[in-house]
Amino acid sequence: VTVHGIFPPIPTPFDRASGDVDRRALTSNVRRWMETRLKGILALGSNGEAALLEETEADLVVATTREAMPSDRLLIVGTGRESTRATIAATRRAAAMGAGAVLVRSPSFFKGQMTAPILVDYYTAVADASSVPVLLYNLPATGVTLGWPVVSQLALHPNIIGMKETSPELERLGQFVTLREGAFSVLCGWAPVVYPALVSGAAGAILAIANVLPDECVALYDDVVAGRHVEARAAQRRLTTLAQLVTTGHGVPGLKAALEMVGYDGGPVRAPLRPLASAARDEIAKAVAAIRTRH
Amino acid sequence: VTVHGIFPPIPTPFDRASGDVDRRALTSNVRRWMETRLKGILALGSNGEAALLEETEADLVVATTREAMPSDRLLIVGTGRESTRATIAATRRAAAMGAGAVLVRSPSFFKGQMTAPILVDYYTAVADASSVPVLLYNLPATGVTLGWPVVSQLALHPNIIGMKETSPELERLGQFVTLREGAFSVLCGWAPVVYPALVSGAAGAILAIANVLPDECVALYDDVVAGRHVEARAAQRRLTTLAQLVTTGHGVPGLKAALEMVGYDGGPVRAPLRPLASAARDEIAKAVAAIRTRH
Amino acid sequence: VTVHGIFPPIPTPFDRASGDVDRRALTSNVRRWMETRLKGILALGSNGEAALLEETEADLVVATTREAMPSDRLLIVGTGRESTRATIAATRRAAAMGAGAVLVRSPSFFKGQMTAPILVDYYTAVADASSVPVLLYNLPATGVTLGWPVVSQLALHPNIIGMKETSPELERLGQFVTLREGAFSVLCGWAPVVYPALVSGAAGAILAIANVLPDECVALYDDVVAGRHVEARAAQRRLTTLAQLVTTGHGVPGLKAALEMVGYDGGPVRAPLRPLASAARDEIAKAVAAIRTRH
Amino acid sequence: VTVHGIFPPIPTPFDRASGDVDRRALTSNVRRWMETRLKGILALGSNGEAALLEETEADLVVATTREAMPSDRLLIVGTGRESTRATIAATRRAAAMGAGAVLVRSPSFFKGQMTAPILVDYYTAVADASSVPVLLYNLPATGVTLGWPVVSQLALHPNIIGMKETSPELERLGQFVTLREGAFSVLCGWAPVVYPALVSGAAGAILAIANVLPDECVALYDDVVAGRHVEARAAQRRLTTLAQLVTTGHGVPGLKAALEMVGYDGGPVRAPLRPLASAARDEIAKAVAAIRTRH
Repeated sequence: VTVHGIFPPIPTPFDRASGDVDRRALTSNVRRWMETRLKGILALGSNGEAALLEETEADLVVATTREAMPSDRLLIVGTGRESTRATIAATRRAAAMGAGAVLVRSPSFFKGQMTAPILVDYYTAVADASSVPVLLYNLPATGVTLGWPVVSQLALHPNIIGMKETSPELERLGQFVTLREGAFSVLCGWAPVVYPALVSGAAGAILAIANVLPDECVALYDDVVAGRHVEARAAQRRLTTLAQLVTTGHGVPGLKAALEMVGYDGGPVRAPLRPLASAARDEIAKAVAAIRTRH
Repeated sequence: VTVHGIFPPIPTPFDRASGDVDRRALTSNVRRWMETRLKGILALGSNGEAALLEETEADLVVATTREAMPSDRLLIVGTGRESTRATIAATRRAAAMGAGAVLVRSPSFFKGQMTAPILVDYYTAVADASSVPVLLYNLPATGVTLGWPVVSQLALHPNIIGMKETSPELERLGQFVTLREGAFSVLCGWAPVVYPALVSGAAGAILAIANVLPDECVALYDDVVAGRHVEARAAQRRLTTLAQLVTTGHGVPGLKAALEMVGYDGGPVRAPLRPLASAARDEIAKAVAAIRTRH
Repeated sequence: VTVHGIFPPIPTPFDRASGDVDRRALTSNVRRWMETRLKGILALGSNGEAALLEETEADLVVATTREAMPSDRLLIVGTGRESTRATIAATRRAAAMGAGAVLVRSPSFFKGQMTAPILVDYYTAVADASSVPVLLYNLPATGVTLGWPVVSQLALHPNIIGMKETSPELERLGQFVTLREGAFSVLCGWAPVVYPALVSGAAGAILAIANVLPDECVALYDDVVAGRHVEARAAQRRLTTLAQLVTTGHGVPGLKAALEMVGYDGGPVRAPLRPLASAARDEIAKAVAAIRTRH
Repeated sequence: VTVHGIFPPIPTPFDRASGDVDRRALTSNVRRWMETRLKGILALGSNGEAALLEETEADLVVATTREAMPSDRLLIVGTGRESTRATIAATRRAAAMGAGAVLVRSPSFFKGQMTAPILVDYYTAVADASSVPVLLYNLPATGVTLGWPVVSQLALHPNIIGMKETSPELERLGQFVTLREGAFSVLCGWAPVVYPALVSGAAGAILAIANVLPDECVALYDDVVAGRHVEARAAQRRLTTLAQLVTTGHGVPGLKAALEMVGYDGGPVRAPLRPLASAARDEIAKAVAAIRTRH
């Protein structure tokens, strides 16, 4: 199994009145994304506010998303929790509901204890217990980084098929793509460097802006595959400004605001996150308009 | 209301076979701590592996602990979660089960978004919703630090009575102790600097080593209150080595191992944490012995 | 030899027109400081803009300062450079001009290479070559920290008599003061924690605010020595605000501005440093006035 | 003026007996590099141990290097110092001795004060005073990073023609290459990402491994220019291991050891740097052999 192409890490819409997961909005969004050439969907990633959901809500998101997707598209579900047993339980539930793969972030509460052997044990236990393929999730912003010793060892596990690398650094990514003679799928998670990442050998990308501009992201990917470097580089430059605004800059509130500008159902974020200030909203609107006009 | 004196952040014992919370061991430990002059107990702190527990397990720990404590001792419960609503729910359940106060860590998953206004809103919402007093919890190791602008504003809330400051730095603590004309209770959470923290005006301390050596910790506190600086400083120096081993050095596995050396029920840690290597165990045993002989 | 008491890390005055070292202003300042009970002076520390001086200027500052000091006051000179040989050369020149001790910061340009053995070698070579006692200088802000393994080994060298610890953390300091059975002089370099540092066993302090308020700083030190903890703690609190403004807050420009407010010769800073903005100047003036009124 | 192609940041050879700059070895090395297709040379960069040299030694290196170079090759000289006036003085001396451009690192001793306006002022003053073009030098490892606001403003200065970006991150670089409609020359300083950097629009690179393997580095550059992506990517992968060993891994000692393996004059490093341990030497020898065999 390999994973390639572009995936959006979808946000979780909440009902404006109750604050609960809004299944209708989620279904409508997913259907619309599935009309594009996106390879599939990542549910319950960071941008899905997974850290702010109860377990029952998480399950609801998975079931609802799967239901709204054609069966031939890949549903990846974020199932990392702080304890190994909770991660395994979440992984099994996701698989049972139709996830095609799981994306597992490293535990990070006990940062100082997350040594290489502990991380190898953790991912091995999860991969052993999972009926679907596992993707590692490198998110250095949490304070825990998966380095070469850990990843190169885990890449030997038959049920670990790749990883998401979420960082502006391409040194690690450039090495990870060589694992399994290139069959270890590294997905770039940092939009402002997606073009150089793909050129370096990344198999695809999981990008917040792919929620907002799926066609533009898929086009960039296609350009790289077809060797159209001039076009791909130009696309990268167009996308970077918006990418910086909706992630590093304004987080999930920025992403949800941007989604509404292109007709998806964004809705409120869950506290302690806050709705976007109007100045930020204007800035994002401008960036979205600049790209769409061009395209 | 003020909080003062020494509190242990108790670990959560797990059954060796099933890995579930071991109520019997917990009860036995709590009863024994309550035979000392500890002011009360902190359940579900970092050392309680709270991050690795399910919500139902967390509730079980609170109920079991309360039941094993005399009614005049203070039970503080860690109720911080990533979402405001989950924190409020946990706070209400803890209060309903007899917590006398709650200790609320800052959300930290979306670090970059945790601005001062968001943190003020978060703690205000929790304090408004809580029927018991709230203690802030500053844990810079998570990547989110509560600074003077946030804490000085929150100290005005009638239901926020103090904070735990877990850091080797005493600059912030030295300022926080001046809030509410000294009636804002700052509890030191970093054992190697507990003596200078108390001298600077801290009202007490929440110390992992108070699980292992409650009498020695209480004696240090009493020395400071009585102005016996020579004795207190000597006690600090005796405690520092062990404190470094069981927290920064070897984390919860170190703490549980140390507990067993003094006759409490330590038991296994929950994965991904790992049992202590035997070299570390020896090092801790030596440090414990050195202090107990002396005392 | 031990070093104790309060020392100001004096700034280097520059001529307003030429930008060169202003010997007359330096002489006048030093004479005035020496009318107080300060134990001596640190020349060419960070606050002396040593990093911005040519070697010949550095020598001029040492000679001028020594000349203006009574022979029984201790002149400490900052002589750390990036290369071992430059540090030794600067140390020898300083000793020849009458320095009583040298304060040597760790090289930090090649941070990643500054391992414990390299740091031990570096300081050993300097101490071997120096005719006057050497003080280590821990300045974690440079990215290189002297930890217990390095300092405990270097404390065995007969010509290394102590250190300056410049950090808000007191965990390391609490351990360093136990070296040589307490005869290793640890000088606190972080004014907002000077009271708890002294109580923990520091022999004295090198404080930017001792330039501005020498009497107040000496009084705090005397209070601690005499066991007047209430007074010392109150003094700490009065000094903290100003200390934060002139160092962390506004650096050398803040210090020079504060000096002028109390009648010393401050003068311009050297570029790339910039003169203080007027809002910051007002803030500092207010903090200085608050303390002097009180005293 | 634009700068493009591959430049080696040459090390400074020292005499084994005296420790002084070894002019003969330097001349011999430079002549040999100039027999390759390297575009020129960077003298007195970090790898030149510039931080460990006296000013007179620095001048000697510049003069000697220039003398050994054909007049049509570009000599870039590192002239950044901590003070603006020292930087200007070093820049003028370098220009007078035949430097074709200067590379100016940001001052970093007073990190906390290095705000955007101060950095803009600093570089503007240097560029105004310099008779040769100026390249900015971004080296985030020093604790001071040149971001978009600073660089985009400085790129308007007619005498600032580009920059060296030394970081594994390609997000900033991807934006800097768009300045001056692509005529602002961004040189990559991080060998493990040089291929994706060039593809993203970098005009060239300054690489420690270009000292050791000049032909291989030039070939990679040529591959990118000619659109031979498969070959360039393969070259990147071959070079990465060695690049990590001689820079992040073992610093200047690693670079000098590697140089000797390919017949250049490496020689000792200056203390506090230490000669390479033999295990590291073996590791580097293996990496060098692996690449040369292949080529």
